[in-house]
Amino acid sequence: MQGTMLIDGKPRFGAGARFHGLDAVTGEALSPAYGSALPRDVDDAAEAAAAAFRIYRAVPRADRAAFLDRIAAAIEELGDSLVERAMLETGLPRGRIEGERARTVGQLRLFGDVLRAGDYLDRRRVDALPDRTPLPRPDLRMMNVPLGPVAVFGASNFPLAFSVAGGDTASALAAGCPVVVKAHPAHPGTSEMVAEAVATAVGRSGLPAGVFGLLHDAGIEAGSRLVADPRIKAVGFTGSARAGKALVAIARSRPEPIPVYAEMSAINPVLLFPAALDERAEAIADGFVPALTGSCGQMCTAPGLLIAAEGPALDRFLATAGAKIAATPAATMLTPAIAANHAAGAARLAATPGVETIALGAEAGPREGQAGLLGVDAPVFLSNALLAEEVFGPTALLVRCSDVDEMAEALAAIGGQLTLSLHVADDDIPAVRAMWPLIEDKAGRVINGAFGTGVEVCEAMVHGGPWPATADPRTTSVGTRAIDRFVRPVCYQNLPKALLPADLG
Amino acid sequence: MQGTMLIDGKPRFGAGARFHGLDAVTGEALSPAYGSALPRDVDDAAEAAAAAFRIYRAVPRADRAAFLDRIAAAIEELGDSLVERAMLETGLPRGRIEGERARTVGQLRLFGDVLRAGDYLDRRRVDALPDRTPLPRPDLRMMNVPLGPVAVFGASNFPLAFSVAGGDTASALAAGCPVVVKAHPAHPGTSEMVAEAVATAVGRSGLPAGVFGLLHDAGIEAGSRLVADPRIKAVGFTGSARAGKALVAIARSRPEPIPVYAEMSAINPVLLFPAALDERAEAIADGFVPALTGSCGQMCTAPGLLIAAEGPALDRFLATAGAKIAATPAATMLTPAIAANHAAGAARLAATPGVETIALGAEAGPREGQAGLLGVDAPVFLSNALLAEEVFGPTALLVRCSDVDEMAEALAAIGGQLTLSLHVADDDIPAVRAMWPLIEDKAGRVINGAFGTGVEVCEAMVHGGPWPATADPRTTSVGTRAIDRFVRPVCYQNLPKALLPADLG
Repeated sequence: MQGTMLIDGKPRFGAGARFHGLDAVTGEALSPAYGSALPRDVDDAAEAAAAAFRIYRAVPRADRAAFLDRIAAAIEELGDSLVERAMLETGLPRGRIEGERARTVGQLRLFGDVLRAGDYLDRRRVDALPDRTPLPRPDLRMMNVPLGPVAVFGASNFPLAFSVAGGDTASALAAGCPVVVKAHPAHPGTSEMVAEAVATAVGRSGLPAGVFGLLHDAGIEAGSRLVADPRIKAVGFTGSARAGKALVAIARSRPEPIPVYAEMSAINPVLLFPAALDERAEAIADGFVPALTGSCGQMCTAPGLLIAAEGPALDRFLATAGAKIAATPAATMLTPAIAANHAAGAARLAATPGVETIALGAEAGPREGQAGLLGVDAPVFLSNALLAEEVFGPTALLVRCSDVDEMAEALAAIGGQLTLSLHVADDDIPAVRAMWPLIEDKAGRVINGAFGTGVEVCEAMVHGGPWPATADPRTTSVGTRAIDRFVRPVCYQNLPKALLPADLG
Repeated sequence: MQGTMLIDGKPRFGAGARFHGLDAVTGEALSPAYGSALPRDVDDAAEAAAAAFRIYRAVPRADRAAFLDRIAAAIEELGDSLVERAMLETGLPRGRIEGERARTVGQLRLFGDVLRAGDYLDRRRVDALPDRTPLPRPDLRMMNVPLGPVAVFGASNFPLAFSVAGGDTASALAAGCPVVVKAHPAHPGTSEMVAEAVATAVGRSGLPAGVFGLLHDAGIEAGSRLVADPRIKAVGFTGSARAGKALVAIARSRPEPIPVYAEMSAINPVLLFPAALDERAEAIADGFVPALTGSCGQMCTAPGLLIAAEGPALDRFLATAGAKIAATPAATMLTPAIAANHAAGAARLAATPGVETIALGAEAGPREGQAGLLGVDAPVFLSNALLAEEVFGPTALLVRCSDVDEMAEALAAIGGQLTLSLHVADDDIPAVRAMWPLIEDKAGRVINGAFGTGVEVCEAMVHGGPWPATADPRTTSVGTRAIDRFVRPVCYQNLPKALLPADLG
C-alpha cells in the first residue's frame, strides 16, 4: 500500500485533503495516508476510461471472461493481508470477511461464465424477405452493446463484495464498460489493495490501462464530479438514501442524463402471520435475532420492521426474541459516524410518543452498536412516516396490529423494499393471497420462512426493488441479471458481414 | 362518436375547454365537439386503473393474449369509417392510414404471441441445496411482473400505430399493466373510435373496466396531472423534445419517480461515404428523396441530416436529389401548428449565415409543408449547435465535409439518434470500421444502404436510442422488446406452491 489512486494504470497520490483509514475497534489512524482526488484526477480517470472504451467494447467475450477470472485470481493472491486489512478497517470478523472474499471472487467468475454463455446479449435475428409485398423486409439483427464508462461507488458495509471489485464493477466490466471506482473512505487500504489486483489483471490481459481506475476522496467532490462527467454513461452505487438521491440529482441535471443504479435503503419488513406464530413463534424468533444483529445489523437486507397481529403467540415470539437480544453483546460498527447515526436513530425512535422499548442488548461503546427491539401500535405507526425510516444498524421496530387487515395497512404505508419476508402456516395462506398484490409490489425479493440476509449470487437473485429501496426497480445489483444495467440494444439493418459485430457474424 | 372520454368503462364528456378535430386540408372544425378533462376526470381514470391492476396483473397470459386479439378485431370491425376519420384529421393519404391500421392490429396480435410464448417473463430457477456448506442454498425463482398502471400519450404523426391502441398501449397491456391514454388533440375522433374498440374488447374479455381509459385535453393540464398521479407507474410518449422533457421533469419530481419512455426527436444522420457515392450517387438520391418527403417528412425516422465529403460524386447526388425535390409538390401537414413550425424552422435554417439552399419543392400553402434541402460546410455546422436541431417536416441539411475524418467530426457533434444510415461501398469499409464506435454509440438502429423510414415491427427492432432521441436508451418503443419497459423482476425465495405465481408454479 502506497496510499495511491490508480489513473490510466498509474499510481497517483491525491493532492487534495488527506485522510486515513481507521482501526474500527480503536479508532486509531492506519497508515498509509491517503490524499483526496483533485478535479484534474477525476478528469484524467474519465478520459482514460473513455479512451479505453473504444478498444474494450470490442474485446471478445472470451477475453473479457479471462480478464474477470484473472481479477479473481489476483485478489486471491493477496492472501491473508487483504483479509486482515479489511478486518482492521471495518471491524467485521474474519469469517465474515473471508466469506465476502469468496463471494467477491465467485461473482467475478460467475460473470465470466455469463460472458462465455452470451445470453445477456439478447441476440435476435429476423431474416430478410426481399419479395414480401407491399414492402420487402430487410435483414434485421439485434444485440446489446455496452453503455460506456461506468462510475462505481464503494459501499461501507461490504468492503469487498460491493466495493472496488464488487458486483457493480464485475457486471460493468463484463458488459464491456470501463469502470472508475470512487473508493469508500472508510476502507482506503482495502480499496487500494484490490485496485492493485485489478491492475495486475489488466496488465496480464493486455488491456488498455484505462479500463479500470480508482479515486480516493474524503469528501463528496470527486464522486460528484465523476457522475457529472459527460464521458461517464452510468453509475453503480450502494449506500445511504441521502447520498444516493444526491447522485441521482446530479445524473439528471447533466445535459445527457444517465442512469444511476443506486441501492439506497430498506427496512425489509417481516410479516408474522398468526398461524405461523401460533405454530412456531420461538423458532421464528431464533432466526430473527441473528438476522437483525449479524454484522451488527449493517446489512442492506437486515430485518428492520416486524408486522404482526397482537396475541399470545406474538407474546411468545417477543419473549424469545427479547431474551436473545438482551444477551447480544455490543459490536463494533463500520465507522464512528455509522455508530453515532445508529445510536441517534435508535434514541429518536425510542423517544417517539407511543413507542415502547421491548428489549435492548448490551450497552455500546462509542464505536459500537447496541441491539434493540422497539414496538409501536399500528395506528401510531400509520400516523407518523418517520417511524418507517431506516435506522441502519441492529435496531428493529415491531408494528402491533389488531388483525391481518391492519397488517396490510401497515405494509401499504411503507415505501419500496429490497426484501419482504413472510412467516406463514397453512392457515395463513388465504390472508397472504388476499394481500398478494401489495406484497409483490413492495419488494424485489419475497422470502418465505426466513429473512433477507444472505443474498445468493446466482441467476435468479433480485437485489433491488421499488423506490426508495433503489433508484430503478427494473434492475438488480446482485446476480447475473445485474449486467443488463450496463447495456443498450442496437438493431443492425442489412449490414454487410464486414461491418456486423463479431457476436452477430 | 359522441365526443366523450372513457373513464372506468363509461363515456364521459369533459367539462373543461372545448375543442374540435380539424379537417387537415381545409382547417374546418369537425364534429363532434370534445371537452377537456378536469382534474377529477384524471383522478377517476387513475383510480379505475389502479383498481383494475389488482385483478389484471394476475389474469393468465393466454387471456391477456386473447384480449389483445379482440382489440385488433374490434379495430378492424370499425371498417372504413376509422380510415376516413383518420385521413380527415391528419391529412395523411389512404394508403398510409390503411398501412398504419394493418401495422396497429399486427402489433397487437404480435404481443399476443409474445404473451403466449412467455419469454419476456425471463423466468429463472435455482434449486435449493439444503446440504451445502457453510450455508444451504434456498430455492430461488425469478420472473418479471408488471409495473402498474401506465400513462400513454398519443402521437400526432401516427394516429393509430403510436396512439390510443398503438405500440405503447399494446406492450403495456401485454405486460399486465392497465393503460390510461391521453389522446392527441389533433385526432380526437380517431382516438374516440379506437377507444371504443378497446372498450368493446374489454367487455368481451370480461376484464375490469378500468384496464383502459381515455382522456381528452386541448392543453397540457390533464397529461401533466396524470404523470404526477402516484397510481401511475410508467409513461409512454412519442412527440416533441419539449413535451417529452416536460414529462420527464414531472415524473422525476414525484415523491416516487417513475420511468418515462419518451421518444422525442431525431435528425437521423445519413453518412454518404465516398466510394458509395462514386458507385451509385443517383440511386442513393432516388432513395433519399422519398424518405425525406414521404408523409410530408413527418416520420420520427425521416433523414434530416446528410453528412458527405465534397467532390464530383456528391455533386451528382445533389443534382439528382435536387431535381427530385424541386418536383415535389407541397403536402398537407398534420396540424396548422406543425406546418407553421416547419416553415419557421426551415426559414431559420436557410437564414443562418453559411447555409445555402440547394433545392426547394413546390411552394406550400398555410397548412402545407414545402420540401427542401439545404447545405452547410462542416466548420460552420461544428460551430453552431442550432444547426443540428430537428426541423420536423420535409427539410434536410447537408453537411459538406472535406474528408472522411471531418465526416466523423460532424457525426460526433450531434446527440443520440433513433437511426443512423450508412451508404457504403467495399472501398469505404476501412473508414467505416475506424468510425464504428462512434456510429454504434449514436443510434438505436444502424442501417446500411437505406433510410430509417419503414420501422419493421418484429423481435429484432430497436426504435430507441441515446439521449435526446429518447429518455431511456436501454429500451425500444417498437417491436417485441418494448414489453420490457413495463415490467420489473421479482425473486421468490422458498415460496410454497400455494403462493408461487402461476407462471412459476
